Parts: sequence; structure tokens; C-alpha cells
Amino acid sequence: LDYQHVQVPFEITLWIMLASLAKIGFHLYNKLPSVVPESCLLIFVGLIMGGIIYGLNDRSPPVMDSDIFFLYLLPPIVLDAGYFMPSRPFFENIGTILLYAVVGTIWNVFGIGFSLYGICQVKSFRLQDVSLLHNLLFGSLIAAVDPVAVLAVFEEIHVNEKLHILVFGESLLNDAVTVVLYKLFRSFCEMPTIKSMDVFAGIGKFFVVGLGGVLVGLSFGFTAAFTTRFTKDIRVIEPLFVFLYSYLSYLTAEMFHLSGIVAIISCAMGMKRYVEANISLKSHTTVKYFMKMWSSVSDTLIFIFLGVSTIGENHEWNWPYICFTVIFCLVWRALGVLVLTFFVNRFHVNTITSKDQFIIAYGGLRGAICFSLVFLLPDFHRKKLFIAATTVVILFTVFVQGMTIRPLVDLLAVKRKRESAPTVGEQIHIRFLDHLLAGIEDISGHWGQYYWKDKLEYFNSKYLQKILLREYDQPKSSIVLLYEKLERKHAMELAQAGQLGHGLAHPSFLSSAFLCSSSDRTVITDQKLEDTPNPDVLDNMQEILARNLYRIRRTGPAYNRHTLPGDSEPAERAKELLILRHKSL
Amino acid sequence: LDYQHVQVPFEITLWIMLASLAKIGFHLYNKLPSVVPESCLLIFVGLIMGGIIYGLNDRSPPVMDSDIFFLYLLPPIVLDAGYFMPSRPFFENIGTILLYAVVGTIWNVFGIGFSLYGICQVKSFRLQDVSLLHNLLFGSLIAAVDPVAVLAVFEEIHVNEKLHILVFGESLLNDAVTVVLYKLFRSFCEMPTIKSMDVFAGIGKFFVVGLGGVLVGLSFGFTAAFTTRFTKDIRVIEPLFVFLYSYLSYLTAEMFHLSGIVAIISCAMGMKRYVEANISLKSHTTVKYFMKMWSSVSDTLIFIFLGVSTIGENHEWNWPYICFTVIFCLVWRALGVLVLTFFVNRFHVNTITSKDQFIIAYGGLRGAICFSLVFLLPDFHRKKLFIAATTVVILFTVFVQGMTIRPLVDLLAVKRKRESAPTVGEQIHIRFLDHLLAGIEDISGHWGQYYWKDKLEYFNSKYLQKILLREYDQPKSSIVLLYEKLERKHAMELAQAGQLGHGLAHPSFLSSAFLCSSSDRTVITDQKLEDTPNPDVLDNMQEILARNLYRIRRTGPAYNRHTLPGDSEPAERAKELLILRHKSL
Repeated sequence: LDYQHVQVPFEITLWIMLASLAKIGFHLYNKLPSVVPESCLLIFVGLIMGGIIYGLNDRSPPVMDSDIFFLYLLPPIVLDAGYFMPSRPFFENIGTILLYAVVGTIWNVFGIGFSLYGICQVKSFRLQDVSLLHNLLFGSLIAAVDPVAVLAVFEEIHVNEKLHILVFGESLLNDAVTVVLYKLFRSFCEMPTIKSMDVFAGIGKFFVVGLGGVLVGLSFGFTAAFTTRFTKDIRVIEPLFVFLYSYLSYLTAEMFHLSGIVAIISCAMGMKRYVEANISLKSHTTVKYFMKMWSSVSDTLIFIFLGVSTIGENHEWNWPYICFTVIFCLVWRALGVLVLTFFVNRFHVNTITSKDQFIIAYGGLRGAICFSLVFLLPDFHRKKLFIAATTVVILFTVFVQGMTIRPLVDLLAVKRKRESAPTVGEQIHIRFLDHLLAGIEDISGHWGQYYWKDKLEYFNSKYLQKILLREYDQPKSSIVLLYEKLERKHAMELAQAGQLGHGLAHPSFLSSAFLCSSSDRTVITDQKLEDTPNPDVLDNMQEILARNLYRIRRTGPAYNRHTLPGDSEPAERAKELLILRHKSL
Repeated sequence: LDYQHVQVPFEITLWIMLASLAKIGFHLYNKLPSVVPESCLLIFVGLIMGGIIYGLNDRSPPVMDSDIFFLYLLPPIVLDAGYFMPSRPFFENIGTILLYAVVGTIWNVFGIGFSLYGICQVKSFRLQDVSLLHNLLFGSLIAAVDPVAVLAVFEEIHVNEKLHILVFGESLLNDAVTVVLYKLFRSFCEMPTIKSMDVFAGIGKFFVVGLGGVLVGLSFGFTAAFTTRFTKDIRVIEPLFVFLYSYLSYLTAEMFHLSGIVAIISCAMGMKRYVEANISLKSHTTVKYFMKMWSSVSDTLIFIFLGVSTIGENHEWNWPYICFTVIFCLVWRALGVLVLTFFVNRFHVNTITSKDQFIIAYGGLRGAICFSLVFLLPDFHRKKLFIAATTVVILFTVFVQGMTIRPLVDLLAVKRKRESAPTVGEQIHIRFLDHLLAGIEDISGHWGQYYWKDKLEYFNSKYLQKILLREYDQPKSSIVLLYEKLERKHAMELAQAGQLGHGLAHPSFLSSAFLCSSSDRTVITDQKLEDTPNPDVLDNMQEILARNLYRIRRTGPAYNRHTLPGDSEPAERAKELLILRHKSL
């Protein structure tokens, strides 16, 4: 037996296997997932496993390595989130999201930090040795809402799209703020004196870290799109580029101390459109499927590890500090949401209702990111207290808030996500309104959302598409793409039901079907046997039939301000008119 | 800049990226891949990169780590090979393959080892310090044909299926022999004296290592199939199990010093059939695509690393030893193939032609496995000579043999692979003949290949399928499955061409098409406008038409000795007869 040799891959594979089997186990009983969120159950499994390991070895089980978390487990989840991000609601609410993510997070950090410092001043709590800076550092890691935890819960409760994107977008974009504040306070803790210069440098860093992440992500995303232009002869490695480039963007951003999460999201959102157009349908299925699979496994592993890492002797228990941490986390977030939403609502017609505000505040779940950050803290005498407080906050938010949010959503009758996809008619109208609003903004000289969207679309169709797309011709409108997708789906269903019409593809079959049906008519009506159409007539019929069917499908690209309507084969159109006229006779 | 932090994943990603970009580069010029095999070009790229690294750092570039090769790069390739192994030709030729793999490899090892020992006795070559055991050890690592190299070359030359499976099957199954002999000689080298017991124990090990690998692989394969029974509610992690279980089988086998390659191949071949039936179509596309992608990347990386590792100061040059190694590798393989084929041909009707024998002997390419094994050798004073000789043999076989085999195949007019897939008719006849031959063997009391195949099929349908398949009903014959696949493909083509017939699915559309075509008839013939069929007649027509089309698709499962023919709805059949009779009127 040579276990040493295979230990690393063997144990990794076993952990992944355990995670996958746990997932299967939960879904075997349909009742379970509908009551308890999967994340809670996974943490529970982790707790049990941690208890077993602790019992057997009599020492703390290994905690989740922060490096493993940030380098291997987090990227797949964020990539998945970015790639499947609904871009329309995201960009429509980008202002509000940024406000929550930047101002809201800063508000929470300082709020929690200062009020905990206040608690530390109470003599009977024996916490006077925790300095203000340490409290602020703790605040910076505990304030940030966690995308993994939010996604795990919000994917199951199906609230309306706007509410979902507000909470989820905030959880993703606050990474830049968290990174900056966490690193700032950590370096302040180690500095002997803090100059006001350092504080200003810290504020400047926000923009560098956030915008730098966006730039790194977009440049990798466009490179990825450009690369997939040349993969026509080796379709098999197409999916690889999507993963490689987005991972590289994450690693590069991390390397330069920029926000990796922001980078990978920009990369995924930037490349998606072009990559999808360049790669084959099967490659795309593989990309989508594998991304979902990978993020789902990462997610499972993170929650199991969270559970496992909770068990052990890393904790220092101090009732007041821990209880007040939980309370302040709740209170400051609620206050922040209230105040920020008040300002947001003053500038928007489509306001955020008080029910939505409650869910936004209540949905501020903490998760593995805080947990990894608290273990990354430099050693100091109260680190174990911080670990204990972080663990309690995570367990409280995931278990109590995560499990009660679904009943609350039901109770408050929060607007749910619409079940059906928008119809083609709706899509046409949305597009029409976009153009209209862009035109109005253009005339009124107001540089609003639609104006910029329109300019971006122009830039895209004029330059980007020509560089990044393999087969650049008239851009297909989303309606045509949707139609093609529906057509494919329909074809698959027909093939599965065994009702595929060979007729229209093979004219001979159609003619035989015709003959069959006309002979059949003779069976039933027993008359006019002589009117079986002759082959010439049949051929003509088929031709016109096929052309008509074809024309229906040739829906042109939707109206676009920047393209001229294509000339639609006048000869064909004339024929069609002729046929219609004859029909009406 | 914090490069340390992200170094490991960053460099891995960059290497994979380099490999993928190299692949794209080759395929940009269509001429290149048709003349030079990809493996040669990749080694060439590796040589250049190695040269650059050597020139910049002034020290040998890092060699390919044997652990990385055996634990991470080899398994995907072997898994891909096993999963897509054409099982029929493999099992039809299993005897010949095993003969080549076991007896042939032993023949080569001892032939090369003893004759190199003979060369070492020539005083002027200054090689007297290389002992017989060391020569045999060297023979054991240099004798084995490499599956990665063979696959890379044979996939491009498209020889006939039997020839391909003979060379490729041998390269896979000789792993068990190589593992045993290599470890045996290595331990002999370190032992003070060798008892005859040890030699017998070594012989016994063959069976343990080979059969043990098969057992480990099959048990993991069946567990995988069993697991996929329960993934109906979480389709997204289905592909994971295919990869996890096969990798675990490889690692487990390696852990117990069994043949990992044999294990992963048995696992893949064992699970494929059941997993495919259990998982969804999209999961299956993902599995197939990802496996191909992964193996293709591993393959590329291996050849690039081979090139990189060649550059450096690891080599001790000795002209006679290196030249004779190349010559003996060629001569002993040719002799071995000739002798073994002579015996094989005596027992088979379908003999191996002399052209095929030449290609089998000539296709014995060496590759990265030898290379990794020679670096794993314990340090002794002639290790660098062995490394040099191995490198030369690999480069000689990959470059000279790899590049000339395609012209030779053309020149000798070796039978090529048939381009088209077998027709349904052929498949039916093959199946019919199988049953017939199984019956004849049964009656004559001869326990041949067909007898065992039939028994296995019985066991499979009676027990295995019931345990391993989610929806166990009448087993679908391969013809029906093929038909469904063709149907799906056809549906996709129709949808893409925009010629999908909605008519047969939506009767209303068919009727409108009918009306249109009959009105169209009036356009052309300008007569009998009154004979537009009335709606009732149309409905009837459609019904009968749809039923007829449906019946064509309802091909029952092929005749099976172990199942009774199902009763095929006599009412329907009666109707059909009625229609046919009316038609003939």
C-alpha cells in the first residue's frame, strides 16, 4: 500500500465525491430541500464530519485553508455568477447596486466597528484590550455580504428579478470595498503611527481596486473572445478558453491586489456575447453545463468545510462581544438599507418598496469569505474571539435568516419572479421602447442610461463585433436568436416523440405522403379517385410550400437605428404577393 | 505585486493556455497538420521553449515531474481512450492483443536487455560497468509501446479498425507487464542476492497486477453506474461522477501497486453503457466533450513537456549504446511481431496480413511513459546514459517513425478505415450472425467468443441492468438507439435550415399547408377549385398520416434470444392492413 504517493489527488477526489453524494442524498427526499436551504444542510453535514474527526483524532479538524478558498473554490462560483448574470436588470440598477455595495459597506464597517469599540469600553465585559483599529478591522471583514451564501438562499426563494439583483449585485461588488478596507486596517494595525496621507491613499485605492479589476477583466474577456475566432478547426478545446481566460483574469487581479471578483465578473460578462456567437452549440452546452457543475461543487465544498472548520478549539467565547456583533450586524445593515433607499427612491420612479427593503436588509447573509478573512488575520491575542464571533454571525445568518427568509417572503407576499419567459411580443416592445427612450434622451440632451446603452451598442456593432466575431454579418437580433433556440427545442421534442416530419426535407416523402393521404381520402369518401395530382403539380406545390415555410423563418433582424433595413429580395416578395392574391380569389 | 501567492495556479493555467494556443496555431495552416503529426510539432515547440529557458537561466529547464505525469496528465488520456474504445473489435481481438501485450512485451524486454548486455561486453565501448540487471531494467522501461504516442499518430492515419485496435490495445494493456517488470528489476537491483522464489513471485505478480486492475476498475465502474441512478433531480452534477469514479479507480489501483491504466480502462468500459442510459443527453454531451477536451490538453502538455525536458544537462552521450538501443528496439519488436503473428494466424481464419504486421511493428512508438519511468530510476552512476538513450529512442520513434508511417501506409496500400458508419441493415445482419453463431457454438458445445458474449448479455439483461439502470424496461437495441440519434441529428439540421415541419406536430398547420397547396394547385392548373377537401376529411387524413409516420418509428427492439417478442397491438396492425388493402385497390 502506497498511500503517500496518491494522497493529494485521492483526498481531493474523495472530498468532491462526498460533496456530490451529499447533494444527491438531499434531493432523494423531496420534502427536505423545500423546507431547509441546501446551505444549512451542508453546514450541518460539515459539523457532523468535523465532530467525527475531532472525536477520532482528539484534535481540531483542519480548517478551510484561505488560499484554497480564494484560489480554487471561489472563482468557479463567481465565474458562474458573472456568466449567467442577467445583464439587463444588472445595468438598469447599477447605480443602486453600487450605492449599496460601496457606501452601504463602508457604513456597515464603520458602524459595526465603532459600536463594538463602544461595547469594549464597558468595564464589566473585560474587552478593554481590543483597540479601535482592531474593531474596525473586524468590522471590515464581518460587514460584507457574501455572494455564495446569498446565491445559495436567493436561488431557492425566487423573489422578483430586481430584488434579487440588488442583493446579489451588492454581494459581488462589495468585494472591492472589502478588499481595500480589510487591507487598509490590517496595515494600519501593524503601523506605529497613521498619517492622514495614508487615509487619503486608502480612499484613492477604492477606485484603483474596483476600476482596475474591471479593466483586467474586460481585457481578458475580449482576448478570450478574440481567441475563439480561430478555433473553428479544433472545436474540442473551445470551452477551455472560457475557463482559462476568466481564471487568468481572476489570478492577475489578485496578483496586483485588485478585486479578483470584480475582474472575473467583468471578464465573464464581457466575453459571453462574443464567445457564444463564435463557439459551436455543443461547446456552448459544455461550457454552460460544466460551469454550473463546477460552481455547484465548489459551493457544496465551501459549506461542508465551513461546518467542519467550526468544530475545534479555535474559539474564545465572550458572550457580550459575540451577541452584540450579531445585533450590530443586523441593526446597521437595516439602518443602512433604510437610509440609502430613501435617497435612491427620491431619484427613481420605480421605487423600492418597504417590503423589498426588508428583504434586502434581511438577506444580508455572511459566509465563507468572512470566514477565510478572519483566519488570514495576523496573530494577535484576541484572534480567537474574532473567529468565534465570525462563526456565530455566519451560522446565525445562514441558519436563522436563511431558513426564515422563505416563510417571510411568503408572509409579506413579496413580488415573485415571473415564471414564464418574456414572449417574443414583449421582447419586441421592450426593444422598441429602448430605442424610443434613447431617441428622447438624445433630443432632450439628457445623457441617461438609454443614451449610453445606445452608444455602447453602436460602438459594439461598428468595431467590437468586427474584431471579435468570426462570421461577422448583420447582427442577429435577440428575437431571431430566441426563435432559433425555440426551433431547436421544438425539433428535439419532435424527434423524441417520433413525429419528425421528414416530408419537408425530402420532397419525395412529402409526395408519397400526399399520395397516401389522397388515396386515404378515397378510402373514406370513396369518390374522385381520378383526382390524384400528377407529379408535376406535386413538385410545384412542394416548391411553393417549402418556400413559404422558409419565408416565415426568415425573420429579419429587428429594427436597429444604426443599420439600414436590408432589401428583402423583391422577386420573392412579388411571388408571395401573387400567391396571396390568387388565394383570395 | 504578489506573484508568490498565485504562482502555482497561474503557471499551470499559463502552461495549459500555451498548449491550447499551440494547438490553434497548427490548425491555422491546413497544410501543416497533414504532413507532420501534431505530436512532432508539439515536441518541437517544447524544444524551442526548453532552449529559451536554458538560454535565459543558464541551467537545465525543469523536467516533467513523474508524479505530475502519472497522477494528472496520464489519467485523462487513458480515460478518454477507454471510454471511447470500440468494444466490439477490442473484444474480438482480445486474445491477440493480450498475446502482443504480455508475451510480446516480455520478449522485447528480455531481447533488448540481453542484447544490450552483450554490447556492454565489447571493451572498446567502455560500458562494462553496466550490469545485466541494469540492462534488463532499462529494457523493461524502453520496451513498452506508449498509448499516448500511438494514439496521437494512429488517430491521424486512419488505418483499418483491426490494425488500430491491435496496436492501441497492446499499448494500453502492456502497462501491467511494464509495471511488474520495472518494479521487479528495480527491486532486484537493490537486493544483494536474488532467490528463485523472487522470480516466481514476480511471475505471479503479472496476474495480480493485471486482474487486480480489472477488478478495481469494474467495481468502481459499476458503483458509478449505480450512483447515476439517483441523479435525476440534480442533473448538473451527473458528469462529475464519470470523472470522479474513474479517477478514483486509477488512484486506488496505483495505491495498491496495481495497473492504473488497466483499472481506468475497465472502469470506463464497464460504466459507459449504463451511465449513458441513466444520465441526460446534455450531461452526456458534456461528458464526451469534456473528456475529449481534457485528454487533448493533457496530450498536448505531455508532448510539449517532453520537448522541454529534452534540453539540458541530464544526458551522458555514448554513441554505441544509444545507437544499438534504437536498433534493438526496432529489431526485437519486428521479430516479436513476426513470431507472435505466425502463431496467431494459425488459429484464426481472419489472418493478419504481412502489411499489417509491418505497420504493427513500425507503429511501436515510445513516449512519455518511458521518459517518466527513466527519471524515476534510483540514482546510480549510469542514469544519465539511460536518460539520453530513452530520449533518443522517443525522439526517433515519434519523429522518424511518426512522420514516415503515413506515407508508408499510403505506399503499402494498407486497408483503411471505412469512412461511413455501418448502415442499419448491416447492424441487423451483424446482430443476426452473432445470435446464429452463439446458437451454433451452443449446440456444438464449443465455448467460443460468441458463447461467452451471449452469456454475458444474458447476465447483463437479467441482473446488471435491473440494478444499474434507472428506468429498466425492455432494453433498447442498439439499432433503435442509433435510429433515435439519427432522428435527433436530422431534427437539428432541419431546425437549422429553417425547414422544420410544424405540420405533423400541429395538425392545424398541416391542414393550412394542405389548403395552401391545394389553392396553389388552382394557381397552376386553374381548375377544379371546388375540390378543396373539407375539414373532416382533412382530419382523417392527418390522423392516418400521423399514425403511419408513427408506426415507422416504432421499430421494436431487435430479436433477442432471451426475450419474447412483444405483442404489437393487433388493433393497430389490423387498421394498417385495412389501409394497405384499400391502397392496392
